[in-house]
Amino acid sequence: MRNINENTITLAVVDSMSATKDARLRTVMTSLVQHLHSFAREVKLTEDEWAKAIDFLTAVGNITDDKRQEFILLSDTLGLSMLVTAQNNKKPAQCTEATVFGPFYVHGAPEYANGGDISNGASGEPCFVSGRILGVDGSPVTSARIDVWQSDQEGFYDVQIVPTSPTTPEHRARGRLRSAADGAFHFRSILAEAYPIPHDGPVGELLEALGRHPWRPAHLHFMITAPGYETLVTHIFRNGDKYLDSDAVFGVRSSLVADWVRHEPGVAPDGTRVSSVHYTLNYDFVLNPVDDA
Amino acid sequence: MRNINENTITLAVVDSMSATKDARLRTVMTSLVQHLHSFAREVKLTEDEWAKAIDFLTAVGNITDDKRQEFILLSDTLGLSMLVTAQNNKKPAQCTEATVFGPFYVHGAPEYANGGDISNGASGEPCFVSGRILGVDGSPVTSARIDVWQSDQEGFYDVQIVPTSPTTPEHRARGRLRSAADGAFHFRSILAEAYPIPHDGPVGELLEALGRHPWRPAHLHFMITAPGYETLVTHIFRNGDKYLDSDAVFGVRSSLVADWVRHEPGVAPDGTRVSSVHYTLNYDFVLNPVDDA
Repeated sequence: MRNINENTITLAVVDSMSATKDARLRTVMTSLVQHLHSFAREVKLTEDEWAKAIDFLTAVGNITDDKRQEFILLSDTLGLSMLVTAQNNKKPAQCTEATVFGPFYVHGAPEYANGGDISNGASGEPCFVSGRILGVDGSPVTSARIDVWQSDQEGFYDVQIVPTSPTTPEHRARGRLRSAADGAFHFRSILAEAYPIPHDGPVGELLEALGRHPWRPAHLHFMITAPGYETLVTHIFRNGDKYLDSDAVFGVRSSLVADWVRHEPGVAPDGTRVSSVHYTLNYDFVLNPVDDA
Repeated sequence: MRNINENTITLAVVDSMSATKDARLRTVMTSLVQHLHSFAREVKLTEDEWAKAIDFLTAVGNITDDKRQEFILLSDTLGLSMLVTAQNNKKPAQCTEATVFGPFYVHGAPEYANGGDISNGASGEPCFVSGRILGVDGSPVTSARIDVWQSDQEGFYDVQIVPTSPTTPEHRARGRLRSAADGAFHFRSILAEAYPIPHDGPVGELLEALGRHPWRPAHLHFMITAPGYETLVTHIFRNGDKYLDSDAVFGVRSSLVADWVRHEPGVAPDGTRVSSVHYTLNYDFVLNPVDDA
């Protein structure tokens, strides 16, 4: 460990972890160090570039707080999040595919009965969402917990907006429901729109330097949990969106693209009269049973 | 870009950077993404592990401020800093080798004439340091700028200590000198001692989980700049230190280990009488000429 140079350093670091009690931690850190060093050697990373990387990570840390998670944005935009999601959620072909969790889920969203309006004051054209939660054999999954969250017509999630009124509800366009006895759920919300990921921070600067746009195609987030099934974290993407082929976070899977059907003013699916253009979306989710093995 | 899975994701991310104007940035980021993804695939990183990594980086960001740079500590303890230093500072054999910069250099340290006492109130046994700044042919380098910094006998740099008195000088055990006409320099300071890197944060937790100690062998930091020569950033390590073979940041090079000679109370090299045990260190630095090519 005295004659450290650019070739001996990797083995020295790997050897230093030989007393690690947690075998999995040792495996992960050994691989991480080897790949990190291989990267630095392959591009012959300079000292200036190293210093810029430190400054960049420091800036990512500085902007991160309870409401903004720039490290997740970084992971998302480098495709790491989607890689981890994909390799840990391999399912039978008939199951609904998973995609990235994203940084905008929050705990404590309101509970709604089926038919409720989860927009809760968020701006946007009305949208009526319905579907079923099913097992792989098509049988209904009863009382599944359905978490849904989305941005408003300006492309902002509630947590990104400082309310202008003290009476503005904290949670808007997000909610929790349960599937009915026949596996069905339905709720009212607003039309999902494309939006840029937060790009006024270091990740936005990086995207600009890389010639990349920060946009995500319009989508609705779902997290569905039910006893005996793997938790499903996914989105439904809006067919026709111009960013479907260039999602800034690489989350699009063809099987998750669905039609939002446009309707003129009239009677909505829930029997109410809607005086404006509105939309309907219907999508069935198929859960993967937990492997008992 | 719609059929993203754990195999197609890497090419999708690399392709997304095809409009990068800065060719070097594209090279670096392409390699980074490929190695990052290879790592995640090789260990089959789980979603829980990914979440822990996000939490870890968030904690590193939270503890980092103007005086504490946990990202540099992380880079140091993973050997990345030393790798980058080594591969960017290959020199002819007769030149003094470089080592890591570390997180404790600060701008604005006081200027001292040769013979000055840079300890400036820092605690420790007196130490008289001397040497010469030379070119590869042994000729003196005149008026070289010499930055020196070190920890005190408790192992703390000035920036790590909240002063107990308003009259405590801000900069202690750090200073700036210039080599004389014959290339020589000398100053008084304190004995360098081994110390642990700051380990009360997330990097310290990681080291503990990896079964690693946080100690660095005793050393004195130097940064030497002179027109016509490459800047030299290095340390001199104290021979006999028990951590020379397990430096937490992998900075030790055999050529940088030197003897601190112990002396009983008496007349110091600068002619003053020292009433306590004291030390001397003599080390000549050989600078690498700038390649004019």
